Amino acid sequence: MKNPDLNARIEARGKDFFQSIAGETPSLFNKDRWVGKVMDWCMKNPDFRVQMFRFVDVFPYLTAGEQLTRHIREYFGGKDQEIPAVLKWGAKSSGFAGAIGGTIINKVLRHNIEEMAGQFIIGETTAEALKNLTRLRQKGFAFVVDVLGEATVNEEEAEQYVATYLDLLDSLKGAQLDWPALVGGDDDELDWGHAPKVNVSVKPTACYSQARPQDFEGSVTGILAWLNRIYEKVIALGGFMCIDMESHQYKDITLEVFRRLRQKHPDHPHLGVVLQAYLKETDHDLAALLGWAGENQLPISIRLVKGAYWDYETVKARQNGWEIPVYTLKAKTDAAFERQARMILENHQSCHLACGSHNVRSIAAVMETALDLKVPEDRYEFQVLYGMAEPVRQGLLKVAGRIRLYCPYGKMVPGMAYLVRRLLENTSNESFLRQSFAEEADIARLLEDPEEVLRRVGAGGDSPTEGPEDSGRLPRFENEPAADFTKPGQRAAFPEAIAGVRKRLGQTYPLFIGGQNVETGHRIPSINPADPAEVIGQVCQAAPPEVDRAIVAARNAFPAWREAAPGRRAAYLLKAAAAARERIFELSAWQILEIGKQWEQAYADVTEAIDFMEYYAREMIRLGTPQQMGSAPGEDNRYFYEPKGIAAVISPWNFPLAISCGMVSAALVTGNCVLFKPSGLTPVIGHGLVELFGEAGLPAGVFNYIPGQSSAMGDYLVEHPDIGLIAFTGSMEVGLRIVEKAARVQPGQHHVKKVIAEMGGKNAIIIDDDADLDEAVPEVLYSAFGFQGQKCSACSRVIVVDGIHDQFVDRLVKAARALKIGPAEDPANFLGPVADGNQQKKIRRYLEIAAKEGEIHYSSQVPNQGYYVPLTIVGGITPEHRIAQQEIFGPLLAVMRARDFDQAIEWANATRFALTGAVFSRSPEHLERARREFRVGNLYLNRNCVGALVERQPFGGGRLSGTGTKTGGPDYLRHFMDPRVVSENTMRRGFAPSQENEG
Amino acid sequence: MKNPDLNARIEARGKDFFQSIAGETPSLFNKDRWVGKVMDWCMKNPDFRVQMFRFVDVFPYLTAGEQLTRHIREYFGGKDQEIPAVLKWGAKSSGFAGAIGGTIINKVLRHNIEEMAGQFIIGETTAEALKNLTRLRQKGFAFVVDVLGEATVNEEEAEQYVATYLDLLDSLKGAQLDWPALVGGDDDELDWGHAPKVNVSVKPTACYSQARPQDFEGSVTGILAWLNRIYEKVIALGGFMCIDMESHQYKDITLEVFRRLRQKHPDHPHLGVVLQAYLKETDHDLAALLGWAGENQLPISIRLVKGAYWDYETVKARQNGWEIPVYTLKAKTDAAFERQARMILENHQSCHLACGSHNVRSIAAVMETALDLKVPEDRYEFQVLYGMAEPVRQGLLKVAGRIRLYCPYGKMVPGMAYLVRRLLENTSNESFLRQSFAEEADIARLLEDPEEVLRRVGAGGDSPTEGPEDSGRLPRFENEPAADFTKPGQRAAFPEAIAGVRKRLGQTYPLFIGGQNVETGHRIPSINPADPAEVIGQVCQAAPPEVDRAIVAARNAFPAWREAAPGRRAAYLLKAAAAARERIFELSAWQILEIGKQWEQAYADVTEAIDFMEYYAREMIRLGTPQQMGSAPGEDNRYFYEPKGIAAVISPWNFPLAISCGMVSAALVTGNCVLFKPSGLTPVIGHGLVELFGEAGLPAGVFNYIPGQSSAMGDYLVEHPDIGLIAFTGSMEVGLRIVEKAARVQPGQHHVKKVIAEMGGKNAIIIDDDADLDEAVPEVLYSAFGFQGQKCSACSRVIVVDGIHDQFVDRLVKAARALKIGPAEDPANFLGPVADGNQQKKIRRYLEIAAKEGEIHYSSQVPNQGYYVPLTIVGGITPEHRIAQQEIFGPLLAVMRARDFDQAIEWANATRFALTGAVFSRSPEHLERARREFRVGNLYLNRNCVGALVERQPFGGGRLSGTGTKTGGPDYLRHFMDPRVVSENTMRRGFAPSQENEG
Repeated sequence: MKNPDLNARIEARGKDFFQSIAGETPSLFNKDRWVGKVMDWCMKNPDFRVQMFRFVDVFPYLTAGEQLTRHIREYFGGKDQEIPAVLKWGAKSSGFAGAIGGTIINKVLRHNIEEMAGQFIIGETTAEALKNLTRLRQKGFAFVVDVLGEATVNEEEAEQYVATYLDLLDSLKGAQLDWPALVGGDDDELDWGHAPKVNVSVKPTACYSQARPQDFEGSVTGILAWLNRIYEKVIALGGFMCIDMESHQYKDITLEVFRRLRQKHPDHPHLGVVLQAYLKETDHDLAALLGWAGENQLPISIRLVKGAYWDYETVKARQNGWEIPVYTLKAKTDAAFERQARMILENHQSCHLACGSHNVRSIAAVMETALDLKVPEDRYEFQVLYGMAEPVRQGLLKVAGRIRLYCPYGKMVPGMAYLVRRLLENTSNESFLRQSFAEEADIARLLEDPEEVLRRVGAGGDSPTEGPEDSGRLPRFENEPAADFTKPGQRAAFPEAIAGVRKRLGQTYPLFIGGQNVETGHRIPSINPADPAEVIGQVCQAAPPEVDRAIVAARNAFPAWREAAPGRRAAYLLKAAAAARERIFELSAWQILEIGKQWEQAYADVTEAIDFMEYYAREMIRLGTPQQMGSAPGEDNRYFYEPKGIAAVISPWNFPLAISCGMVSAALVTGNCVLFKPSGLTPVIGHGLVELFGEAGLPAGVFNYIPGQSSAMGDYLVEHPDIGLIAFTGSMEVGLRIVEKAARVQPGQHHVKKVIAEMGGKNAIIIDDDADLDEAVPEVLYSAFGFQGQKCSACSRVIVVDGIHDQFVDRLVKAARALKIGPAEDPANFLGPVADGNQQKKIRRYLEIAAKEGEIHYSSQVPNQGYYVPLTIVGGITPEHRIAQQEIFGPLLAVMRARDFDQAIEWANATRFALTGAVFSRSPEHLERARREFRVGNLYLNRNCVGALVERQPFGGGRLSGTGTKTGGPDYLRHFMDPRVVSENTMRRGFAPSQENEG
Repeated sequence: MKNPDLNARIEARGKDFFQSIAGETPSLFNKDRWVGKVMDWCMKNPDFRVQMFRFVDVFPYLTAGEQLTRHIREYFGGKDQEIPAVLKWGAKSSGFAGAIGGTIINKVLRHNIEEMAGQFIIGETTAEALKNLTRLRQKGFAFVVDVLGEATVNEEEAEQYVATYLDLLDSLKGAQLDWPALVGGDDDELDWGHAPKVNVSVKPTACYSQARPQDFEGSVTGILAWLNRIYEKVIALGGFMCIDMESHQYKDITLEVFRRLRQKHPDHPHLGVVLQAYLKETDHDLAALLGWAGENQLPISIRLVKGAYWDYETVKARQNGWEIPVYTLKAKTDAAFERQARMILENHQSCHLACGSHNVRSIAAVMETALDLKVPEDRYEFQVLYGMAEPVRQGLLKVAGRIRLYCPYGKMVPGMAYLVRRLLENTSNESFLRQSFAEEADIARLLEDPEEVLRRVGAGGDSPTEGPEDSGRLPRFENEPAADFTKPGQRAAFPEAIAGVRKRLGQTYPLFIGGQNVETGHRIPSINPADPAEVIGQVCQAAPPEVDRAIVAARNAFPAWREAAPGRRAAYLLKAAAAARERIFELSAWQILEIGKQWEQAYADVTEAIDFMEYYAREMIRLGTPQQMGSAPGEDNRYFYEPKGIAAVISPWNFPLAISCGMVSAALVTGNCVLFKPSGLTPVIGHGLVELFGEAGLPAGVFNYIPGQSSAMGDYLVEHPDIGLIAFTGSMEVGLRIVEKAARVQPGQHHVKKVIAEMGGKNAIIIDDDADLDEAVPEVLYSAFGFQGQKCSACSRVIVVDGIHDQFVDRLVKAARALKIGPAEDPANFLGPVADGNQQKKIRRYLEIAAKEGEIHYSSQVPNQGYYVPLTIVGGITPEHRIAQQEIFGPLLAVMRARDFDQAIEWANATRFALTGAVFSRSPEHLERARREFRVGNLYLNRNCVGALVERQPFGGGRLSGTGTKTGGPDYLRHFMDPRVVSENTMRRGFAPSQENEG
């Protein structure tokens, strides 16, 4: 298909292109200017690069001089307290060389950064933008305007974003009348005879704050509503609108929005969308889109780019255990770009191409391919970013004529994200611009056919991150992947699984003791908190006689189980994990119905259960190998662990599978036999363990399931002299009661009981005055209101440093207003019902207290049916308030205004608890202080404070939050065992066999 | 001095020698015989070698066929249950090839091993011995007889040993009359004209069961008393006696015995002693001995050997941290042998030489050196072992004429130790015989001058075990060396230090709070339990106000101490350890006087304190490095530990420095501040910590010393809401009280208290029916009665399998009778006073109970003054007896007769405690079962159950013995800390810095 000598022509054109711009340097790399000097320094010094871009990111927040001075020192002071010379550049020429004080540096730096930003942004105001756009057009460049915006965290911001577009369009409407069309056409209304003069680019997620992949339809309609308003205005003035492509998670939503909008206005063809060549799915998406356009006879326009979120996509995928959606080899992206450009050009009747690249090879390829395919000139154009790669744009103007500059417009604060991305892009090792202009790489290499590059490096697959595993050993632990709602299959699986589970509601669940189902007369129904009339299951209740029976079963099973090799015990866990993996959607569905947990969180609960089993299996194999102690000859000392005996596992309802499974599997794999008492609110999910371990083939008596009322058998279980170990997760009150009761040695008891207790939290997130609110607002919302705030890790206090308090609270409250409330089975709902009527009552009492102690900023409406409580944000709270001290376990967030960061830390620590916490700050020093002084078990910096992952964030707190045992961490299993040492004197008759490990 | 062409002559003579015996093989390596086959198999297969020699060792105990069958299977069954063919050798020729059943193998093997033993032992009875000796003399060999004996563990055995000699001498006296003198002399009374016909060799420690290096004078006189009786009989019949040299620890004692005996009978010159060339001290010892002989004009005789305890000496030294007393290079020993032989030959006027070597080079060297020095023939002779190296002895007989065979005589059971040593020697890689006759090494190499060998291998030093240390890092942890009483300086240091301490008795000891001495009005004297009138010190007592004051001091010091880097905190410990090392004898002396601890154990208590500090310092540096968790990009997860806060350390009196120091230093190095309450019986030793940490410069308030009465301030301290952690070692009753009290969260308390409790024990030693009683008896005695049985690790039950019960108890009781009782300051005393009057009363009550429940086998006398109780052994105890269940903490040992090993294990586990235990068995299967089923914290196989060393035997038990925390082990410090995790989202604006440890 591809013309055989096409590549030669592409390379020849590329060479010509390079020659035509020889000697020119993009201003970014011009070392006569500050920005060029900084870029140069960044490319030489990776640490400085990180610091510099982080500094640029926070810079617009540093309005006070003191703040700026401090940050300069923190970011660049380093060990020798020497500010790098490049940052002072310009101070000298201003005549201040002799006495560079903080103020001078501040001024110089502020000036330089603003100038740098100005280079990439067409204007901060409409007037400024219009002036610059007019000037660009005079030079022969078309434009596409993009309104810079903060991340849209609430609907008011979405509205504001849309409003800005509408205003801009009004201004452009007037301005375009004065603009002569660009050369090449005879229609004075259209540039080059075919292109609207007004061209805007819009980010879909900026139009709607609640877009979430799992809520596909809701996201599409939410975005479409606003986007349509902009587009109607664009149509009215005869303009062009392109829908930008953001991160991969919104790709399918965006494509769907595009199709619907295109269909809605079939007669206005000037609607485009962006495709990113670096996505592995783009070949498929492009084919589908072209097919769709052809079928529906709706010509479309595609801006083809390489993609600007490579780091983000890679990191996000690896953090979540997903396949990396982007090519990890740059040449693969380059090859895809050429392949996809060709595909569009081949379909030029139904699709217009905007070639969005600065890469001379890619540009030349598009040019020659278009010539080769005899594509009319009005079916393709070239786009480059404003402020970058000036020689390329000049060259393109000369050669192609049809060149459009992508011009961001707006305030500097929201513009910084854009700026940082551009800077990073251009200073990355693989940047074409860096290689072309800063490093003067060999032109032949720069112009090489990317397919040829791939053949040369022999890259078949595209997964360089995965190495071969040691055969025979377990592969390294990896967290089970999070739900990936970009996959239609996963989205569809949820309603299906819920429907399946619903058919099985109302069954009776017996106890499980000594390998037998045991029915008892006393049964209690478990119900759906979103619809109390819906009975999930009828659950048999254990009383002391059943506890005794289970103890006997466990005691009988214990000797053989203790003797089972660690690897064998681990194998049962791995089998149970495999069973859970098989049933993951069904197990999630039970949680959605029995306890009102949202899709992704229900799924995460199951993956966490799997993680616990996979991790503890490996941990036990690690800890199960006796340690040789010392190196003296003639003796053999081995340190190893033994199980404590019979473990009572008492688990909560909020992570009904994960926490149960974590405690149970830790107890089991270490060789203990288990009596498992699930929460009375989630006994059916708890019964899932009977099923999973049943599928794994666990020997009878090793695991016993004894749901029962705490009042009827809780103390009996805890005080039983045969219980060796109690693993508990739940409230502080119950936990401390267990600790105290277990400490008394009962008659007939021949050991000190071990209690592993994970209890409550009163967790705070600190918002420093330089926090990135685009991230802080949604993360606080998720931390505070995810699963209705019913997590021991949930944020219940947000401590905001005075300087940023009002701005933060304003955005937060508005964002909270946008959250939908209703049954968890509908993925549109952010918030569901709380666990039961008791919780509902308790939280409502706290709402009354909150109203008295503080000022209610927002309290939502709730559905009539079900155990709902309003999502509430209360301000004006200080440490002495009950709302600041007591664990509420519901969707009530206290906002505390702290004088400064010191006070914020002090307040954060000022409760009886020490479980989780977070800090949003861009001050290196404050982050460092928080590490040391914000004394909680799990501290998170610049992220939410929930969702600790097994192994990566071993979980648990100190003070009255727990016994410092840290689930999912390297020390956890040790608490379930006692160490023993056997020392053998290997010397007999004066003779000792030589030791293998002798030093 | 050395004749330059002497070496050439030595080599020439060696070559001649080899030629003269060419083609001959010692029966040991003759593969036509069973022993040769076995030796061949051993040399090819090191594992088999170990098993074979261990089997030979236990063999004589296997009198029952069932026992023998089982042991054969256990030792040689291996994985494939196939008995190696070599062991069945002889069965085939007996016509049983088709159906080799257990009985046949038993018979064949028994026959073969007995035959093998017979080859090395001159006879089992006097008659047999005389017959064989006569035959040897007929062949032209002189002899020296050595009576084989079990290790002498009691005085009756010593007496028996001496009696055997006296009987033997009587028989020899008669026999020698019938023996013609060996050729070479004209005196028919003497062999070769100058040597007595009767020649015996005697082991000094066999003559006296209580020889101990620290009791030098007592050991010398104890040995001398019996040895003199033998020697007088030797003189009476005109014989020769040689005093054997055993292990290094008895060397100086033996040399002193030799000198005194020689001096006592100046007119009978026929007394010899053995020197071992492998000892580094032998050059010095020899010179001294020759000087002494010359000065006193007392001619002597020396048998020079290489030395037969090389493995033992090396292992023992390395286990105790002593310099290895033997050369580790074989060539050094060979060179020393030649050097020392020459030295003796140069002094032949005053010293006769017996050359005891099978090494042809060494023999040739002696011959040529003697010729070179013109030494008369009657001043030297050659000795070889009976049954070995027959070609060498034949060659020597031809060349030198004067050759004497060393002939062991006695029963097979005690002979096995000798046999095993010989077999090991001959199959070791460096064995000259192995190389000469089994491997046919190059003769030139075998005859090379050892000095030349050393020059060739360039071995300057002789410490191949010590490598260079990493600079800048702490060297690997090594236990502080044990007291080495072979060093006269160490022996002398004790009385000196005791005298020094005695001058400082009676001082007043204030509290130490917040860096200040604090005197209180209430003072209690601490006294010497061996002499209650002697006041060690007047100790100020803390009450609740002082506890509060110390809490405040600790609270104030805590923040800075917590922030101190782990390495800095560790450095304080190392300084304190260095200070303790400086004062080690003085600190030992305080223990000898304040609590009645014996020299070596007082010293061990101080070394253990040093070990704790050195080990925990390193452990903290290890644990102080945050762990990176997971490998996901874009996040940085660090897992690290923080101190719990204020620790109360409540310590016992029995290891008054070690345990205190262990708990305190663990608490300190992990960053906690400490309130230290020493035992009321050892507050002065406890005050040593104030001094040591003072010398280390610990900041004020970090460590506080608050001695006080438990009744006055114990509960107050434990229940204080500011106490975060309690480290306790002591009785079960107090421990459980603390556990219970600490579990209740007090008003104002914001954490769950951690309790680390090491409590009591009721420790058992199992004596299996194949146990090596030579080792079991003294190890049980030390375990039960060391420091008066006042160790939580002490043995209080010895469970003896029926088949060996009577034999064991008989030897044990007799051995106990030999133990001396009196003040610990006299090193002759094995047992001292118990801690105080209360302990004395309590133990005496148990003695009454013991008399009722069982049968008193032995109960010693005690001194009138001081808190003594009789050392008591009670038999007939079964598990239901109180004596079998309750911790007595005194010198009372219960003997329990178990039906079999199963019951022994069952009984061993049948108490509330699970601290230490030991098993003496030579059954691999029983040892393996004990590993699994004898469920105590510290199990010891074939050794005593006390004296756990830091790192090598992390110490502590389960059940009601403790909380499973294991002091001195890799998990201990974790209990003093809480883990924390800080997770930083390192991605900003979609960009994450690459991680150093990215996978």
